[in-house]
Amino acid sequence: MSALEKHDLVRVAVLGAGNVGGALVEEIFGHHGAIAASTGVSLDLVGVAVRNPAKGVAASLPPQMVTTDPMALIIRDDVDIVVELIGGIEPAHSLIKAALERGRSVVTANKALLAAHGPALAALAEERGVDLLYEAAVGGAIPVIRALRTSLAGERVVRVMGIVNGTTNYIVSEMTDNGLDYDAALAQAIQLGYAEADPSADVDGFDAAAKAAILAALAFGVAVEGEFVHREGIGSIRKVDVENAKRLGYVIKLLATAEAVDGGDGVSVRVHPVMLDATHPLASVRGAMNAVFIQGESCGEMMLYGAGAGGKATSSAVLGDLLDAARNFSLGRASVAPRHRPARLVPMTELRSAFHLRLEVVDRPGVLGRVAKVFGDHGISIRAMEQDGLGEGARLTFLTHVADEGAMAETIGALRTLDSVVGVGGVIRVFGGETADSTSGAH
Amino acid sequence: MSALEKHDLVRVAVLGAGNVGGALVEEIFGHHGAIAASTGVSLDLVGVAVRNPAKGVAASLPPQMVTTDPMALIIRDDVDIVVELIGGIEPAHSLIKAALERGRSVVTANKALLAAHGPALAALAEERGVDLLYEAAVGGAIPVIRALRTSLAGERVVRVMGIVNGTTNYIVSEMTDNGLDYDAALAQAIQLGYAEADPSADVDGFDAAAKAAILAALAFGVAVEGEFVHREGIGSIRKVDVENAKRLGYVIKLLATAEAVDGGDGVSVRVHPVMLDATHPLASVRGAMNAVFIQGESCGEMMLYGAGAGGKATSSAVLGDLLDAARNFSLGRASVAPRHRPARLVPMTELRSAFHLRLEVVDRPGVLGRVAKVFGDHGISIRAMEQDGLGEGARLTFLTHVADEGAMAETIGALRTLDSVVGVGGVIRVFGGETADSTSGAH
Repeated sequence: MSALEKHDLVRVAVLGAGNVGGALVEEIFGHHGAIAASTGVSLDLVGVAVRNPAKGVAASLPPQMVTTDPMALIIRDDVDIVVELIGGIEPAHSLIKAALERGRSVVTANKALLAAHGPALAALAEERGVDLLYEAAVGGAIPVIRALRTSLAGERVVRVMGIVNGTTNYIVSEMTDNGLDYDAALAQAIQLGYAEADPSADVDGFDAAAKAAILAALAFGVAVEGEFVHREGIGSIRKVDVENAKRLGYVIKLLATAEAVDGGDGVSVRVHPVMLDATHPLASVRGAMNAVFIQGESCGEMMLYGAGAGGKATSSAVLGDLLDAARNFSLGRASVAPRHRPARLVPMTELRSAFHLRLEVVDRPGVLGRVAKVFGDHGISIRAMEQDGLGEGARLTFLTHVADEGAMAETIGALRTLDSVVGVGGVIRVFGGETADSTSGAH
Repeated sequence: MSALEKHDLVRVAVLGAGNVGGALVEEIFGHHGAIAASTGVSLDLVGVAVRNPAKGVAASLPPQMVTTDPMALIIRDDVDIVVELIGGIEPAHSLIKAALERGRSVVTANKALLAAHGPALAALAEERGVDLLYEAAVGGAIPVIRALRTSLAGERVVRVMGIVNGTTNYIVSEMTDNGLDYDAALAQAIQLGYAEADPSADVDGFDAAAKAAILAALAFGVAVEGEFVHREGIGSIRKVDVENAKRLGYVIKLLATAEAVDGGDGVSVRVHPVMLDATHPLASVRGAMNAVFIQGESCGEMMLYGAGAGGKATSSAVLGDLLDAARNFSLGRASVAPRHRPARLVPMTELRSAFHLRLEVVDRPGVLGRVAKVFGDHGISIRAMEQDGLGEGARLTFLTHVADEGAMAETIGALRTLDSVVGVGGVIRVFGGETADSTSGAH
């Protein structure tokens, strides 16, 4: 007789029945017996809160199970676990808070909410002795949250780098593999439903920044709000940058990075495009796939790869959390909340990176000398330079050695003031190969 | 005040202090405070059992902590969790059984033992309400065990394919990337310490078969002993096979596979070399690295990649389990044991695969016709054929369409009886590209 028989049923309320919620509800109904047989957990769906009861999976449920009032649902006495799949900050935040305060465990996929209020909600969950689980918030079905929370709990993590936004990875993959320019790749992503008509949340890195904050909290125990994450999107990447990267043995990826600085006293959390050595495991992650690369002092290099989005993949992660929370509930316990400490968030200007950048210049004698002097004046050392004719002018492409971020920013500012420089673009950090560990902020 | 403060200390006994045990003991001693701060778990190492107290980490421990009698250590009243890192079947089996029977949780990295007795030990752990955790038994630091056990608990897994033996992956990688022949690559692996002087456990697939059994138990809930896993090693792979694979867009890998057959009523568990489509995520896993690729109905395709061996990487996984077991202990609970059911183990002859094979034949008119007739008589359809002159004779290389395994075995037998056939070799299953899902056993 196992301890699992303590509670026959674990009663679940689901908030939101869109793509993910719908797939989850269908899974709970359609495979109830199989889930119970293989896990020992019997899930009882007591209610689903939706905006429109006539739409989607709600329309096929018994009417008494469907409500348009999520707060009324979660405060019912017969709810043990609340699954929040509404998204956005409000009313999701109030609902999750109310559920935790009443001692209900919560499973959510809401990265924006977690990036803003995750540490406070985790503390509330721990205080009430219930679960707050959110595997689906980063990397869809990929078990990266659980890996950081459990398997790597004793590990001194050095760096986490993730391709955590499928839309931007689709766009840069199309530019790399099929030679599309940015606008064409974006249009294709919108057409295929990978990107919204207003793609800013993805292409400007907001979504990735929220996920970077969540990863940083788990890997380094720091409380960083998503809006304080340094963020650069992919909108300024041009076809020529992608071609340069390829010729030089790199692949451009938008990476969410959290890494220890100064031996772990500080943490850098940031989102920006990176020219990644083509042999790096993340370099082969194509299309809308996601992957998170983790380096730890003991575990070495590790990568978790999989579908980062989609209703079924995301609902698979939600179901894993739900079963975890349900087993904990049935045994009268909770998962351990991650601990947060106030580590110093290191600003970009304290880091060091190697850079790619390209200058469009007028084709006039002495231009290269003037440009080179600006680099030299700021202590930036050039690793490689290429010059291409460009109609009236010329294009100079530079790879720098590892340099201070602050000095680089000043260099770019100074280059822009030169008469002979028409434009500065393709400012992309280079990682791997000769520049491996370049961004580890030691200086 | 969190529930974690219930027990101040969790008392740990470690059996074995070789590579992994030594790294673990150093980790517990060297980072005791950091571990406690970040996880809330305070580990108290009460004793270490070793064969020779004068060797390794044992020599630097206080003498009263070191014993040569592991059984005496685990039956002490002041031990809460036993970490078994001795390896092999006995005495490890008796020790783990004794520990579980006394209500101690057990963490182990012992794949051979788990492949032979895992399900029985898991049942014993569940009966006593304690943990039996073994993340390090497959894929070193890669959190594949926890992913299958927890994150994917509700998932209908379709297939698990793993590069789970670093030695053989190193050898086939050297053959592929650096053009070495098998003997040279093996010699190099032995020289570098990747392979034992007697490499049979690795190159003949015994180690991978044990891990396949463990993965099958977790992914499909079946109890399969390692010795019943179909097993083919890498010893018959020749340089020409590697070159053929490369030319045809494949990479040869030794894969441990567990997959659902007949919609999940049966399970195939096997280890054999595979020509894998070069674009498959597993194809880029090089050297001694490990990776496990998981396909599920909801989660889609997922891959977990990392260091499969080495004292520090393995001890990282052991420490993750130890902290999990310690938190469970401090809260008076246990992880949920995987459930096992008696699924039908499907023999190879019921599966279907596409094949690569090469024939050495005498160069005589009509040979190809006779060979082709043998394929045709057994219902094997040829997808591609190449012929190379070879001194007195010729080499014929065939790729077949997907065919019954049984028919293929008969075909090979019949080909060997032909006067004009000097030898049949390079019999390697082909997976991916046109033959994707070829081995899904449906017929």
